Amino acid sequence: MKQARLQKIQRVLSLRQPTLTVLLEEVHKPHNLSAILRSCDAVGAMQAHAIVPRGGMPTYNATSGSAEKWVPLHTHKQVIPTIEDLQKQGYQVLATHLSERAVDYREVDYTRPTCILLGAEKWGVSEDAAKAADQNIIIPMMGMVQSLNVSVAAATILFEAQRQRQVAGMYREPQIEPVTLKRLTFEWLYP
Amino acid sequence: MKQARLQKIQRVLSLRQPTLTVLLEEVHKPHNLSAILRSCDAVGAMQAHAIVPRGGMPTYNATSGSAEKWVPLHTHKQVIPTIEDLQKQGYQVLATHLSERAVDYREVDYTRPTCILLGAEKWGVSEDAAKAADQNIIIPMMGMVQSLNVSVAAATILFEAQRQRQVAGMYREPQIEPVTLKRLTFEWLYP
Ligand SMILES: C[S@@+](CC[C@H](N)C(=O)[O-])C[C@H]1O[C@@H](n2cnc3c(N)ncnc32)[C@H](O)[C@@H]1O
Ligand SMILES: C[S@@+](CC[C@H](N)C(=O)[O-])C[C@H]1O[C@@H](n2cnc3c(N)ncnc32)[C@H](O)[C@@H]1O
Repeated sequence: MKQARLQKIQRVLSLRQPTLTVLLEEVHKPHNLSAILRSCDAVGAMQAHAIVPRGGMPTYNATSGSAEKWVPLHTHKQVIPTIEDLQKQGYQVLATHLSERAVDYREVDYTRPTCILLGAEKWGVSEDAAKAADQNIIIPMMGMVQSLNVSVAAATILFEAQRQRQVAGMYREPQIEPVTLKRLTFEWLYP
Repeated sequence: MKQARLQKIQRVLSLRQPTLTVLLEEVHKPHNLSAILRSCDAVGAMQAHAIVPRGGMPTYNATSGSAEKWVPLHTHKQVIPTIEDLQKQGYQVLATHLSERAVDYREVDYTRPTCILLGAEKWGVSEDAAKAADQNIIIPMMGMVQSLNVSVAAATILFEAQRQRQVAGMYREPQIEPVTLKRLTFEWLYP
């Protein structure tokens, strides 16, 4: 039992993608947050970021598989400094935002260090954040309704990233340092 | 204004895919139902099906873009006769279900008439329904959590179908009969 769990943890950690993450700009519905973290976990994103302007911790949906244990969510107060910080770390920040410069989400190279910026249920990504992002991307909409649910949009893009990274062999060898892998194995085994 | 609306309706109807649909087996959370119908609308699915054993109409999430106007949801009482009926109409029914015969969702040909069968939030697709389906498909999970949110899974598969159908040129020419196109244009313009 313990052995099986250790093996699962080691396998999952060896698939983790430290260069794939999301930044949620005031996404606030618990079921959306939970669904996004589950998708992050499924494609191997190691952590997630959220802008929570008034501080406080986001709440999750208790009934769904709780991924927040496996994909830590880091909260920040201001979106622009957070974007700039990620860019300094080498991430391309892709804002999901319909603008003149928006491209189809499938045209982007997700094997590069990538952060997907997603917007609030009502308001979407702010104009300032969309401008600060390296690129604006959009999932094609061929129907009457203007936008997708935010957790649906997140997953659609994350699984395109997963597809590209699989083709590129990025799940074949561990992407995290041996020492980090060891530390996390221990932390996950004895929470 | 009226002219712009007419044009939008005509464009959307000319992209509709009468041979792409979903069957929801007791999916009951309003936000999931709404999110799934929005994704259906976005990829051009013309209608959706749901199993509602105790009768009654499913409820939607009023706050999200209401796609149920554009993607009628047909309710049925029993899952097996509904699957068989779809198969008689020429649909391949793909159950999202982890079984011995399950294949990666990207290995399937979605240019064929296709119905994606999705399961309840808690219980998933029933064993009987999974057996009656033509194939079982699964989205790869590389993390600690066992399953995705159902609306997330639906969208991930629907956008793979959209991708394949786009490559195959199925959005280039209207897929519905001229007479149906005319009737629906009128119905959508004067609801
Ligand atoms: C419900 S939408 C926001 C709607 C808002 N009225 C707008 O126009 O931006 C919430 C979030 O879902 C994501 N989203 C929804 N539809 C999308 C699409 N077609 N492409 C990319 N992202 C999308 C974006 O992150 C968006 O900020
Ligand atoms: C939360 S899941 C059901 C979980 C249930 N405990 C089970 O094991 O089936 C609800 C539905 O989402 C869909 N789903 C979730 N994860 C999926 C995956 N990895 N591949 C395909 N469909 C999935 C399926 O339609 C499933 O019935």
